[in-house]
Amino acid sequence: MASDKQARRPRAETPKGFRDYFGAEVSERKAMLDAIAAVYHRYGFDPLETSAVETVEALGKFLPDVERPNAGVFAWREDEEAASRDGDWLALRYDLTAPLARVAAQYRGDLPSPYRRYAMGPVWRNEKPGPGRFRQFYQCDADTVGSGSVAADAEICAMLADALEEVGIPRGDYVVRVNNRKVLNGVMEVIGLWDPATTGDPFAERRGIVMRAIDKLDRLGEDGVRYLLGDGRHDESGDFARGASLGLAEIQTVLAFLDARRDTNAATLDRLRTIVIASPTGLEGVSELESIARLLAAQGYGPDRIVIDPSVVRGLGYYTGPVFEAELTFEITDDKGRPRQFGSVAGGGRYDDLVKRFTGQSVPATGVSIGVDRLLAALQAKGRMQADTRGPVVVTVMDRDRMADYQMMATELRRAGIRAEVYLGNPKTFGNQLKYADKRKSPVAVIEGADEAARGVVLLKDLALGARIAAAASHEEWKSQPAQTEVARADLVAEVRRLLGTA
Amino acid sequence: MASDKQARRPRAETPKGFRDYFGAEVSERKAMLDAIAAVYHRYGFDPLETSAVETVEALGKFLPDVERPNAGVFAWREDEEAASRDGDWLALRYDLTAPLARVAAQYRGDLPSPYRRYAMGPVWRNEKPGPGRFRQFYQCDADTVGSGSVAADAEICAMLADALEEVGIPRGDYVVRVNNRKVLNGVMEVIGLWDPATTGDPFAERRGIVMRAIDKLDRLGEDGVRYLLGDGRHDESGDFARGASLGLAEIQTVLAFLDARRDTNAATLDRLRTIVIASPTGLEGVSELESIARLLAAQGYGPDRIVIDPSVVRGLGYYTGPVFEAELTFEITDDKGRPRQFGSVAGGGRYDDLVKRFTGQSVPATGVSIGVDRLLAALQAKGRMQADTRGPVVVTVMDRDRMADYQMMATELRRAGIRAEVYLGNPKTFGNQLKYADKRKSPVAVIEGADEAARGVVLLKDLALGARIAAAASHEEWKSQPAQTEVARADLVAEVRRLLGTA
Repeated sequence: MASDKQARRPRAETPKGFRDYFGAEVSERKAMLDAIAAVYHRYGFDPLETSAVETVEALGKFLPDVERPNAGVFAWREDEEAASRDGDWLALRYDLTAPLARVAAQYRGDLPSPYRRYAMGPVWRNEKPGPGRFRQFYQCDADTVGSGSVAADAEICAMLADALEEVGIPRGDYVVRVNNRKVLNGVMEVIGLWDPATTGDPFAERRGIVMRAIDKLDRLGEDGVRYLLGDGRHDESGDFARGASLGLAEIQTVLAFLDARRDTNAATLDRLRTIVIASPTGLEGVSELESIARLLAAQGYGPDRIVIDPSVVRGLGYYTGPVFEAELTFEITDDKGRPRQFGSVAGGGRYDDLVKRFTGQSVPATGVSIGVDRLLAALQAKGRMQADTRGPVVVTVMDRDRMADYQMMATELRRAGIRAEVYLGNPKTFGNQLKYADKRKSPVAVIEGADEAARGVVLLKDLALGARIAAAASHEEWKSQPAQTEVARADLVAEVRRLLGTA
Repeated sequence: MASDKQARRPRAETPKGFRDYFGAEVSERKAMLDAIAAVYHRYGFDPLETSAVETVEALGKFLPDVERPNAGVFAWREDEEAASRDGDWLALRYDLTAPLARVAAQYRGDLPSPYRRYAMGPVWRNEKPGPGRFRQFYQCDADTVGSGSVAADAEICAMLADALEEVGIPRGDYVVRVNNRKVLNGVMEVIGLWDPATTGDPFAERRGIVMRAIDKLDRLGEDGVRYLLGDGRHDESGDFARGASLGLAEIQTVLAFLDARRDTNAATLDRLRTIVIASPTGLEGVSELESIARLLAAQGYGPDRIVIDPSVVRGLGYYTGPVFEAELTFEITDDKGRPRQFGSVAGGGRYDDLVKRFTGQSVPATGVSIGVDRLLAALQAKGRMQADTRGPVVVTVMDRDRMADYQMMATELRRAGIRAEVYLGNPKTFGNQLKYADKRKSPVAVIEGADEAARGVVLLKDLALGARIAAAASHEEWKSQPAQTEVARADLVAEVRRLLGTA
């Protein structure tokens, strides 16, 4: 392979579906994740960083997952000499929950129980790349493993609300909506699609259709959902989506459930209780939601921040109890200029069966995953990015032999905590140096030629001001260059600091 | 595959050669990398995060690399439907330099030039795992692409010194040693193993033997190196290592070069100049080192921090100019209890040909890579870890029905910035709760039973003090439990803060 490729040059390309992150993109994501991590830490959660690579076996590539039936992983067969067993298959993790389940099983004797952990890092999906769809992206998860108490679910919801405020989403601009799979199961029981006493599950497929129909309420409206619950529906393209074949009364029950949200959590819970009155599981679910609402209210998290909302389904099949979703309620304009709500940025819930895959024993767990790219986009839309992405002060090079003096200026500025550097490209044309400073979004350029050096002064060019003048001013004003001032060399640090507004 | 595996449970195992990082391990590495990033930022370097996955073609799997001739990557063939071209091979990056070269070529029209960037993240090596040798580990690099000036090399050395001090290595405990490949090439020219005017390179192999011999000076001593430069040498196991077949005069020249370090940089440079006087390339190298030493001295980086040292070789074949290495000079005891210097924690140099692979044009570049695990081990050895790895204050649960009150205590503590949580396991046995608090390294446990609640007080158990007493005290002293105090409920936050020593 080496020999027949040596002749031509390799292509300098990011692989299809992958991307690189530069400067501010990295800093802004890091600032956001650091802020979230600080909240998680304060809540007693510990960081966990698992290896990016898992055995395909541990990863559970074959977990049923209705939302991503064709989701692939990047996998390869282990070299035989390195493998612990012949032909182990390895793969890149596709989320942070599967590795957590593996860790919880592998270290179950050593970890504290409950085990509260957070994890932040890239995950990989071997999917056909599309516009805005990448095959590597960040996830940010927090989970409590080993607590069956709804207090653990409530805590996750409160922590999520705190995290959103910490990164810069003001109160009133978000709401955490909480539902419970048990209530949903109660509805299924009431409409005859679920029987906890039966072995085998003849209704799994129809239940799936109901779940997906509920999840589409926002998009299809009540009428569309009604068709999907009944005989099925032709979508815009003419394709036929099979329905759940429910009778009229059952359809009414599902729609009543979806419409159960009232002005107060107490009223919503009353309404839900009426709907699932014939299902012990459903009533247990309502009672859990009641406990969650009470715990949260006692800590000051009222329905302006965290609300019981029966329309929350969450796609993943593995949830077994409370489910939650954080929605941003402010408006943005979509591609076509129409106003719409920003929408969901985080979701999660209780999943008591994931560790069981490994150990055979059910381990209660609950957690949340923040959509890192979605939340970053929201902060961008709100102008709430926290990272300082200003470029460095650039010390220009007027006389190549005086490099040591220029370096000393940069050193002095850095010692004062100011980001600074000497231009290290070819200093022949001064214009190139200023173009470079522009590209770096440099706020100030420092200039010292032989004349200035002899007089013990330096010139400071306020590039930020310069840019504003260039955008707004006439040619005459531009020529007068008010953005350039001469200061004593000894005052370099103080004067730069003044220009930066950090005096 | 799914069907015949369904019967048995998956193994909960980290893949061979990979590991997971828990709590303090994650926080301590992050604190160190954050401190380093702050220094790099101050020097004007921008973060870059490339995708973990590269095309094998771009990665340059087949780059010659004398140090890792068998180094493998984790690679797989792209699915055809997702691939941009049939059968692209993808791989996990094995370092952060190859992706930088790809980025510098791919975005050469858009990036500022010079482009200063830093990168921190995992890399992967498909090597046979061994004790302490992992197949995923962190690297931390800073590079300047597009500057041929030795000022760029000097800047990297100064920045490296600053970074080491910032993370907690005191001045005097480290030294950055600087050499130049051109001086080494000059020595090769003088001893007849390199001729810049000849096409083809008949001496490459013997040069490689000389380089490796020089690199082994520390381990083999001058005599061992002398054999390797001459006819070869039997090592302890009896294996024969072929020598470079140099004559006596040539061997003396190489040894004189290795012994050229003097008390001052000026004296070392004079000595080097004498040795390579017959080689224009060698003299150019000495002159570059002189510029670097002068620039650094002018900024206050004297030979106590950065020193010219001819014995620095750096293994990688791609260096073309100045090379540097940061060594920690304090002593630790090795596995056998013998004192030895801690040794190298970072290295780098100038490599002007890496981008050329893609573009055909030489792009000057220089950079440094910090050995993240090595430096962390050094900080550990010096007790200089910066992360706060204390566990949370644990609010115990004495009465399950009063969960909301316990949550409120945790909420109050968190609002005061104190890490706190409510015990969320089964509260039946109180002993389990204290064991849990122990495992979490919790400094304080909060206890409020019905009696305390009625009297408006809480008990604070100083677990840090308790642990010290348990280790040292008699049974009688232990029973008196001085580590437990009763405080008013209203003073919870203030009293906990006092115990934590953050009042």
